[in-house]
Amino acid sequence: MSTIRAWAAETARGELKSFEFDAGPLGAEQVEIRVEHCGICHSDLSMLDNDWGRTRYPFVPGHEVVGRVVAVGERAQRLAIGDRVGLGWYSGSCMSCPQCLAGHHNLCQRGEETLIGRHGGFAERVRCHWLWAAPIPEGLDASSAGPMFCGGITVFNPILECQVLPTERVGVIGIGGLGHLALKFLRAWGCEVTAFTSNPAKADEAKALGAHRVVATGDGQALAKLAGQLDFLLVTVNVTLDWPALLGTLAPHGRLHVVGAVLEPMKIPAFALIGGSKRVSGSPLGSPALIDRMLEFSARHELAPQVERFAFSRVNEAIEHLRAGKARYRVVLEADWA
Amino acid sequence: MSTIRAWAAETARGELKSFEFDAGPLGAEQVEIRVEHCGICHSDLSMLDNDWGRTRYPFVPGHEVVGRVVAVGERAQRLAIGDRVGLGWYSGSCMSCPQCLAGHHNLCQRGEETLIGRHGGFAERVRCHWLWAAPIPEGLDASSAGPMFCGGITVFNPILECQVLPTERVGVIGIGGLGHLALKFLRAWGCEVTAFTSNPAKADEAKALGAHRVVATGDGQALAKLAGQLDFLLVTVNVTLDWPALLGTLAPHGRLHVVGAVLEPMKIPAFALIGGSKRVSGSPLGSPALIDRMLEFSARHELAPQVERFAFSRVNEAIEHLRAGKARYRVVLEADWA
Repeated sequence: MSTIRAWAAETARGELKSFEFDAGPLGAEQVEIRVEHCGICHSDLSMLDNDWGRTRYPFVPGHEVVGRVVAVGERAQRLAIGDRVGLGWYSGSCMSCPQCLAGHHNLCQRGEETLIGRHGGFAERVRCHWLWAAPIPEGLDASSAGPMFCGGITVFNPILECQVLPTERVGVIGIGGLGHLALKFLRAWGCEVTAFTSNPAKADEAKALGAHRVVATGDGQALAKLAGQLDFLLVTVNVTLDWPALLGTLAPHGRLHVVGAVLEPMKIPAFALIGGSKRVSGSPLGSPALIDRMLEFSARHELAPQVERFAFSRVNEAIEHLRAGKARYRVVLEADWA
Repeated sequence: MSTIRAWAAETARGELKSFEFDAGPLGAEQVEIRVEHCGICHSDLSMLDNDWGRTRYPFVPGHEVVGRVVAVGERAQRLAIGDRVGLGWYSGSCMSCPQCLAGHHNLCQRGEETLIGRHGGFAERVRCHWLWAAPIPEGLDASSAGPMFCGGITVFNPILECQVLPTERVGVIGIGGLGHLALKFLRAWGCEVTAFTSNPAKADEAKALGAHRVVATGDGQALAKLAGQLDFLLVTVNVTLDWPALLGTLAPHGRLHVVGAVLEPMKIPAFALIGGSKRVSGSPLGSPALIDRMLEFSARHELAPQVERFAFSRVNEAIEHLRAGKARYRVVLEADWA
């Protein structure tokens, strides 16, 4: 019973093919999840392509899993067989470092990542430490919830980290898998929301997702008009932007927060921070405790990722759809094992 | 009685000479201060040299004033003739913008600066809006307090802005006029304090000022040893540093805060922020309410700037002393008008 069927690539950028592996005995602190749905994230592509030099092949992508618990290790807590749970980027934490002890398991330096040194969620079943299998509350649609566990928590976490208030004026740069969820969260949070996109075709959709107004990211005049207006600006894209111009749109005490891993260093003039007591920050995903709060908040506000569904057997087609920039706004695979 | 004697430069980098000007009638919200002491700050030199292109000549420097109130405008509040007060970089605020209304008068975009478009504190008397003349509490030595009102509040404010806790490990980069006060404040705050200096001769002095340990700013190996150690790092110098290496010394949730106006943009890799939920911020001086708290805190902890005193008549000598990097750690002028 420890043989697991999955979809794996044998080489960088390779097509995914049927693959089986022996998962060995279940760890005492682990649970095993039967995968019902799994989102596809840009990081799956980065890992598939070995962009970060961290991939080992055969490689099984997938870190936006929704499914039911089918096995529980002897020391696993909080979960029972049959529970519906979600699993994201992290699959384990050391549980004893200062970060874990403080509840910031997402900042554990010895954490396990779902895709790295092990196999991910494009599979029949997947395992993780019980801590990282988040129970999905009643009222949340399981078939679209997968992207919450990576894209969702990545943009929800900064709202808390930066202590965004419902009285504030906020902006979201990039309206894709992450950005569309940020618009929904921030609208439900009670903020005045501005969407920044380089794709004018997304303007109406951005409004439908929650934006009060839409601005073209590269439009210098539009940015100048926003001078001193925004309290919080969330960057979900991973391209170099006009950082001084964006800092200029911030009001005093404004925060610019990045979750998109821009490879080129950001050039930040000290003057642009000092004058208005501004700051630039970043963050990775969020803690298990915060994932629980995000799910509760989302259920209360009837808020879900907007997804397109593909059967697992069409996984390569789904990947091409995402690569082509066509996803509106997140792709989710559905189990169709024979 | 509105003629004021002062020391002024007629050209950029010019020697200061005796100068008299007519200050006109006192504003209704203003107070007039008889200057007893005035610190010299690097910004006085930057303005004297017109480094920022904002100087008009004849130019009267001075924005770290201590003196007694000798006249009170008809609508001025909180102060009476004879009160001992301090005046720093700001001499007025609009009192009605969102920042002023929120108590952040230091972020007022229409504020008046003591040195700009008017004459500063290298004078017999100087005026300001009553809000910016801070009463000096009993127990604080007036002859050394001047630097509190610019250098002091500039480094005290970030401790509050960044919510530094006494349980934290902190670092101060640059042990000069600002940095030496930051060491004193942070030691009194209860933190574990690391001083970073490029001048090995300052190591013992830095410890006497409050540092638990001293590190050479440019020593890559020493920085590597500090990896992940610090919660808060205050940059008081205005030169380009190895920003990724400094961010590397921060623990998760660490903050790097700049008060030195480095002219070259800081190159900040997004990855260096995202991995550990770190941030980079800046700030200018502090609010009047915070100046009051700083003075109260300093009196309680018997904490004062370490100064060297020169008579006003030796002002040019004092300026050269500062320019030569010899100040330990702040120069204060003392009134000796005939």
